Amino acid sequence: MQNNKDGKLILVTAITPTPAGEGKTTVSIGLTDGLNKIGKNAAVALREPSLGPSFGLKGGAAGGGYSQVVPMEDINLHFTGDIHAITTAHNLCAAMLDNHIQQGNELNIDPRKIVFRRVMDLNERALRNIIIGLGGTANGVPRESGFDITVASEVMAILCLANNLSDLKTRLGKIILAYTYDNKPVTADDIHASGSMAALLKDAIKPNLVQTLEGSPAFIHGGPFANIAHGCNSIQATKLGLKLSDYLVTEAGFGADLGGEKFLDIKCRVANLKPSAVVVVATIRALKMHGGLPKNNLSSENIEALKNGLPNLNKHIENIKSFGLPVIVAINKFPTDTENEIKFLETECEKSGAVFALSEGWAKGGEGTKILAQKVVEACEQKSDFKFTYETDQNIETKIEAVAKKIYGADGVDYSPEALKMLVRVHEMGLDNLLVCMAKTQYSLSDKPELLGRPKNFKILVREIRISAGAGFIVAVTGNIMTMPGLPKKPAALNIDVDENGKITGLF
Amino acid sequence: MQNNKDGKLILVTAITPTPAGEGKTTVSIGLTDGLNKIGKNAAVALREPSLGPSFGLKGGAAGGGYSQVVPMEDINLHFTGDIHAITTAHNLCAAMLDNHIQQGNELNIDPRKIVFRRVMDLNERALRNIIIGLGGTANGVPRESGFDITVASEVMAILCLANNLSDLKTRLGKIILAYTYDNKPVTADDIHASGSMAALLKDAIKPNLVQTLEGSPAFIHGGPFANIAHGCNSIQATKLGLKLSDYLVTEAGFGADLGGEKFLDIKCRVANLKPSAVVVVATIRALKMHGGLPKNNLSSENIEALKNGLPNLNKHIENIKSFGLPVIVAINKFPTDTENEIKFLETECEKSGAVFALSEGWAKGGEGTKILAQKVVEACEQKSDFKFTYETDQNIETKIEAVAKKIYGADGVDYSPEALKMLVRVHEMGLDNLLVCMAKTQYSLSDKPELLGRPKNFKILVREIRISAGAGFIVAVTGNIMTMPGLPKKPAALNIDVDENGKITGLF
Amino acid sequence: MQNNKDGKLILVTAITPTPAGEGKTTVSIGLTDGLNKIGKNAAVALREPSLGPSFGLKGGAAGGGYSQVVPMEDINLHFTGDIHAITTAHNLCAAMLDNHIQQGNELNIDPRKIVFRRVMDLNERALRNIIIGLGGTANGVPRESGFDITVASEVMAILCLANNLSDLKTRLGKIILAYTYDNKPVTADDIHASGSMAALLKDAIKPNLVQTLEGSPAFIHGGPFANIAHGCNSIQATKLGLKLSDYLVTEAGFGADLGGEKFLDIKCRVANLKPSAVVVVATIRALKMHGGLPKNNLSSENIEALKNGLPNLNKHIENIKSFGLPVIVAINKFPTDTENEIKFLETECEKSGAVFALSEGWAKGGEGTKILAQKVVEACEQKSDFKFTYETDQNIETKIEAVAKKIYGADGVDYSPEALKMLVRVHEMGLDNLLVCMAKTQYSLSDKPELLGRPKNFKILVREIRISAGAGFIVAVTGNIMTMPGLPKKPAALNIDVDENGKITGLF
Amino acid sequence: MQNNKDGKLILVTAITPTPAGEGKTTVSIGLTDGLNKIGKNAAVALREPSLGPSFGLKGGAAGGGYSQVVPMEDINLHFTGDIHAITTAHNLCAAMLDNHIQQGNELNIDPRKIVFRRVMDLNERALRNIIIGLGGTANGVPRESGFDITVASEVMAILCLANNLSDLKTRLGKIILAYTYDNKPVTADDIHASGSMAALLKDAIKPNLVQTLEGSPAFIHGGPFANIAHGCNSIQATKLGLKLSDYLVTEAGFGADLGGEKFLDIKCRVANLKPSAVVVVATIRALKMHGGLPKNNLSSENIEALKNGLPNLNKHIENIKSFGLPVIVAINKFPTDTENEIKFLETECEKSGAVFALSEGWAKGGEGTKILAQKVVEACEQKSDFKFTYETDQNIETKIEAVAKKIYGADGVDYSPEALKMLVRVHEMGLDNLLVCMAKTQYSLSDKPELLGRPKNFKILVREIRISAGAGFIVAVTGNIMTMPGLPKKPAALNIDVDENGKITGLF
Repeated sequence: MQNNKDGKLILVTAITPTPAGEGKTTVSIGLTDGLNKIGKNAAVALREPSLGPSFGLKGGAAGGGYSQVVPMEDINLHFTGDIHAITTAHNLCAAMLDNHIQQGNELNIDPRKIVFRRVMDLNERALRNIIIGLGGTANGVPRESGFDITVASEVMAILCLANNLSDLKTRLGKIILAYTYDNKPVTADDIHASGSMAALLKDAIKPNLVQTLEGSPAFIHGGPFANIAHGCNSIQATKLGLKLSDYLVTEAGFGADLGGEKFLDIKCRVANLKPSAVVVVATIRALKMHGGLPKNNLSSENIEALKNGLPNLNKHIENIKSFGLPVIVAINKFPTDTENEIKFLETECEKSGAVFALSEGWAKGGEGTKILAQKVVEACEQKSDFKFTYETDQNIETKIEAVAKKIYGADGVDYSPEALKMLVRVHEMGLDNLLVCMAKTQYSLSDKPELLGRPKNFKILVREIRISAGAGFIVAVTGNIMTMPGLPKKPAALNIDVDENGKITGLF
Repeated sequence: MQNNKDGKLILVTAITPTPAGEGKTTVSIGLTDGLNKIGKNAAVALREPSLGPSFGLKGGAAGGGYSQVVPMEDINLHFTGDIHAITTAHNLCAAMLDNHIQQGNELNIDPRKIVFRRVMDLNERALRNIIIGLGGTANGVPRESGFDITVASEVMAILCLANNLSDLKTRLGKIILAYTYDNKPVTADDIHASGSMAALLKDAIKPNLVQTLEGSPAFIHGGPFANIAHGCNSIQATKLGLKLSDYLVTEAGFGADLGGEKFLDIKCRVANLKPSAVVVVATIRALKMHGGLPKNNLSSENIEALKNGLPNLNKHIENIKSFGLPVIVAINKFPTDTENEIKFLETECEKSGAVFALSEGWAKGGEGTKILAQKVVEACEQKSDFKFTYETDQNIETKIEAVAKKIYGADGVDYSPEALKMLVRVHEMGLDNLLVCMAKTQYSLSDKPELLGRPKNFKILVREIRISAGAGFIVAVTGNIMTMPGLPKKPAALNIDVDENGKITGLF
Repeated sequence: MQNNKDGKLILVTAITPTPAGEGKTTVSIGLTDGLNKIGKNAAVALREPSLGPSFGLKGGAAGGGYSQVVPMEDINLHFTGDIHAITTAHNLCAAMLDNHIQQGNELNIDPRKIVFRRVMDLNERALRNIIIGLGGTANGVPRESGFDITVASEVMAILCLANNLSDLKTRLGKIILAYTYDNKPVTADDIHASGSMAALLKDAIKPNLVQTLEGSPAFIHGGPFANIAHGCNSIQATKLGLKLSDYLVTEAGFGADLGGEKFLDIKCRVANLKPSAVVVVATIRALKMHGGLPKNNLSSENIEALKNGLPNLNKHIENIKSFGLPVIVAINKFPTDTENEIKFLETECEKSGAVFALSEGWAKGGEGTKILAQKVVEACEQKSDFKFTYETDQNIETKIEAVAKKIYGADGVDYSPEALKMLVRVHEMGLDNLLVCMAKTQYSLSDKPELLGRPKNFKILVREIRISAGAGFIVAVTGNIMTMPGLPKKPAALNIDVDENGKITGLF
Repeated sequence: MQNNKDGKLILVTAITPTPAGEGKTTVSIGLTDGLNKIGKNAAVALREPSLGPSFGLKGGAAGGGYSQVVPMEDINLHFTGDIHAITTAHNLCAAMLDNHIQQGNELNIDPRKIVFRRVMDLNERALRNIIIGLGGTANGVPRESGFDITVASEVMAILCLANNLSDLKTRLGKIILAYTYDNKPVTADDIHASGSMAALLKDAIKPNLVQTLEGSPAFIHGGPFANIAHGCNSIQATKLGLKLSDYLVTEAGFGADLGGEKFLDIKCRVANLKPSAVVVVATIRALKMHGGLPKNNLSSENIEALKNGLPNLNKHIENIKSFGLPVIVAINKFPTDTENEIKFLETECEKSGAVFALSEGWAKGGEGTKILAQKVVEACEQKSDFKFTYETDQNIETKIEAVAKKIYGADGVDYSPEALKMLVRVHEMGLDNLLVCMAKTQYSLSDKPELLGRPKNFKILVREIRISAGAGFIVAVTGNIMTMPGLPKKPAALNIDVDENGKITGLF
């Protein structure tokens, strides 16, 4: 199979998300079914859903309507246990770290400078900030810590970026867990944890294969957060998919400025991938919100609002073009979209140099995406000239500035005193060759969630710098970043049930 | 299959454990292989190992030598994910509980009276005592709590005692999570958690089938702690094994006074099982320790010490007889055992009315247990008159006293003021019809670990009463009970590794 | 003044306290006024009240009725600031200790082994168990700790036992604050705190002089807890009083088995004092409670109950005699006491070899205690042969046993495993020559508060051993010991007020 | 005495402080002695020192050289116990609050919304952030809290701003302690705490009178922080001083932009005081630092640096003039000051319309300040037209803007989202008529400590709004504000000692 020729790689991304929803996963699945419908050999590669949201807010992560992967319940519950394995590997490392301190602390770790938290694959507000090690000398060393959701674990990011099991182990060993009293980093290798962690992940690193309702192959594997990590499924699954199909459709988290940028600048660089085309998903409803309409006013025709929302789409189109790639705008069709609106949008897209197509996968399955599929196939034939936003050997500040200015349209970057201090340490530790992973609100091209459309005249404020040395990037945190969600007032869990035959209800 | 006739049920238990080791699992597997060797259709039902000890103290839980179940690495790692499912179901309930309080606390729960902790399937000393919910109003309500190891979860005990998925859900719903400000119990059903929990466990409740090195079927399913729970594998696996074989061998945790008693008084009662014979495993080395020899003096012949250790074995034989069941003493043979010692022991066992047989499964597989197997088959043909230590409709104190006097040989039972207070609440809450699960040191028939052999003239002190209303028993805690182990100075995890092909080393 | 001849020292103590109240302070003040009334030169030495109870339960600590010291409000509020000085000296030492750890921890202190808590002179339930040092490296080291009420501070005990300012500083320096990672004690001198502490206490060590309503001099100085400390006022005040008067009346906390024993075995030994007589205060109401009557049945004559309560009084009389000292029983008269009861009691006291007298100071001031005063003067003329319960050079267990058997009437002493472990460390640290300070319930001669009268056939259980190396004693803790009280449902503080002229209401 | 005519009030304030030191207290004392030397009847009113700094960084707070108040040791230790009384009153209120919650929480207080912390008069880093109420239902409700230093207590601010005991009680009752679950404020009056608090403060509210080395009367009373409070001594002391002298000299904390502004806008407004003149203290060394010289380069003549530092002095002069008051610049003379520098400075001051005088009190006592005294007397004869920076009936934002623009020279004010939210609540709670107390770095006229001299083109960022409803002001917090200092690496406490006669060494 290693000798198979690689298929074409198609990235599905989106405009800046709004509460109106865009439907990236649904379009990805629908497009794959459509490609197969028009006689191509296509597969899709998606991310694994976390249990947290499944039991929190209604809504699984396996597509919708006629564009779904199955068996949906199993995919949305434990699936093949990959995430449990990541949870365990992560937490074993944390336990070994605290045990190292308890047993004499040979490495001189300052317990107050431990940056490696624990993880759980649930929405667990109460574990965000905790104190551990209480109860006297037999029960550890008291210190402040907390839990993140598993998909926010650096181990998850590593699993998705590892080229194989050896690479995985090497990367795990590089995770910075803590600092000593004299501020030297302490890694997972320093406490001899990477072997056990990798052993726990030996099966989890293997891609999982399921299928769509229409029978197209679907690789579901890996699902890192798209804020503090890169938000794409695993390199292993993507590569396997490319070997086994002529067209591999894959998606990236949030909008094209976040997951899209990271897919191209991080994942493609690490895995040496070259996409053939990029689909930007939009809805007419969402564009009208970017144009200023409130959420409950989206159902009637409003060309003016649509027009006012267009600059957001245009900026994303420009961005993809700046990577040297062809762009197809896929409009995930809703019943309330009017002919006039669709027509208007089509004209405008063409003006921007992007191909336009409706996507009706939700209502019609692959039948509804044949035109889109056709246009994607055509785009893949175009000559492209893929290039990154920044170079690996630039320093961290230069990389951050490149993303902020080129992708977000910012005037520049400010840093908090803490971030500046951390940048100095990054230089001292010789980590400038790491890539950059921006943690920014998904709701705006800027770092202010209330700025819809295409904001101008703003600077990005980097409040915090985190080091993911195992994943291979520096996380530049703008705004508050939530790494452990909470359950809502009425969590979905209240209504989920199973009958005596194992049939599950209420899951989506 | 429901119409199959049930096979014979054989319990493997042991004398009071010593640091010298007894080898219950090895004997169980060896005996099963031996039964098959002599032409019987036999299977074994074992408990699933926890990841905690696997990465802590060297030594897996899948037997040893030629008496093993395979694939050992997978069984000792995630296996089929059952324990991860239990962890998740348990912790989802905990998250829903804290979320209930956060979202307005309709049920008027006193956060200080929450008795349901969280679980993790690792040895995690630092999480024994923690404070959660810190960081202000958006991050929960500050309170003291902690993590237990997953196998100590009431959910694990329930999974092992549930007769089917409906029963599982009903029992989950009865778990008492907390008390209100006016001391009313709050259950998992009160917060509508049992449906989601059961959904997460729909596959975990199904028994797992592997095999021994010699190809005998092995059901590995469920593994509750033998101190705060009953320490036997699942009813589902036991029943399935009985339908699919003529002889089902199964084991229970710790000695015959703990896991053995609970297997007979709890599991058999709940599942309506009737064992045909009980094997009590002993080693000559361990009996010599009970006779007063220190651990490093066990290798040379010492009939005197052996003789002095006999009363421990005899008490366990008496106990099994008090249940109305035939007893076979299986001596797990060690190279240092001398002919004289074996001879002496055989004579003494016969005096006590127990059948005697050597078990050489570790060294020889089924070939080494054929005589044992034969004697077990013969014992199973004896007429037996199975009866319990206490009756369900007796009150809790009477039940505890019955176990203490009849099984431990105690003069009576004392209660701490806290335990007495809790007993009053048990009566008030109408829970006297629950069974009794003793949490006692495994190292002595008494509640004082330093009293080896057959202690006399002692009373049991019940320090604490815990209610496992879902599992269906009251836990009477004597001594300090550790529900979350810690890693040792040099945990096994330091040496576990995996190579590029996924081959694991250092796991056992 | 150093050349003045010392006056006679009279200890006022009591039977085992009951909710009916005894009135030791009132009798002490009344007796002093009575002595002056009959022409003697007498003074009284009392303890300083803590602010905690003043704002908690109603009831000041300055006597009552016509037997009071004045100005009561000021004495019950800050008085001369002695307790504030002790609070500050104690807490400065605690701050220096945490600062030592923060600044590099040269002494290798294990933060989990700090035994020196902080103090506050208030009833502060919420500060009993706290976690400090949170918030990252700039804000200390996280650890579990708590506050005691100031009067429970070892610094208070030291101030009361110090013979002068130099002795005070030496003793402060010996306080054991913590232990190192390898279990060596760390003292206040090790962190160079005793100089500053003594500086803060330079004025507090000086006795305060006020007067009774009738103008007798009253020294009010020092007030250590009578459970974890010795419960007597300061040596400095007692000695000054002896130089300035012919008769110095002083009291000790709780009953004669607690404060009384410690006054004689600890304070008198340390200060080289020799009492001339001991007054045991009782009330007929309290004796009837010891005889089995409930609290709301004490108002009508009941000779039977009185008789049944007598053994308690008799045991205390025996105990005082065992110290070789004359005993006067002072009955603090209540309006409901009947002639028959008084008569009966008088007869019985004489049988026991104790002098008997009514004390009517509350109702009549010194006029009401003239007879008592006369009898005390006579007792002081008797020859006495003062001896201790144990010798300084006996080991700690022998000392504890002596108090338990001779004073409490116990059959012996049991120790918890923790206490045994600590005793070993006491021996290793060479601290066997310390005195013994029993921390026992005041409500019974035994260690079980429900055993009234004169309990027999019991053993004392020492649960915990604490070292007060600065005060010079080992605290043997039996039962739960509360070192920080809480406010009641309706604290006195709710009703305390001050008007525009500074007049305080609601304080007592 | 109420009929005495008030004397002239003279405020001593300073330029923006530098590490070079200015000597405000020394100048205040020296000026007072000088006034008496030239035949006037003058007194000085100062703040009470906190114990925290006394045991932390070397340096008492009682002046220096020949310009001191005595007895210095007693003033620097407990003095008259005022601060202990404040500590106790504050903490009693905190204890009553937690007790209210523990006893049923009738007021429905959200424990997470308690804003009233505890206080201690020590530098106590480890108590900055703590968790209290641990240990189960009998020991309170777990919650996050902390201790501030007593001088940062709102009670201290109230004591200093109260016009009499009734006013004190009223203000105490208005302190906002917490908010309910539905965000209603809970005050000290709501929990009936103000009566007890006032009772504890009945003596502390009375001014303390000591004297300078030369015998001038000195009132030392009250000492609130100059960042989160107004930083001036008590109104009671100031008013008493005005009645008893013809000239009352008093000081305010930090520079003229902080303590000076608050003295004029807060204290004078509340007490209806009208100053006659303002002395701005500067040193040539400090001005050279403002001019850009590093600290170790100040000893040689440098007119250029002095000239560059002048704008800072000029801005303060302008500010005082904007209040309509005459300004005298007092140069606290150092041996290294050259004739040329003094001459240059004198000329420049005159250009700015300020009177200039050397102050040589440290070296020469009152003899060294006679000229200064003379110029102050002359200034007091000038006609002045005292007016405030803002009006009471303006809203909070307008008041803050007025101070920022007029006093600091800022271009405007920004607010953090949290501060904006809090401002809304201030409006809702009807608290716009409170005064404004700025919490800003003392090291710069701006909110950035590194901007020396006279910064331009900056905006103030208000990060947090705190309500001191009892003191009567809103605290606008810019930057990080430290309300509990920590001990340094080598605290003064290590060297403080007392000998057998009570003589203290090492205190200053």
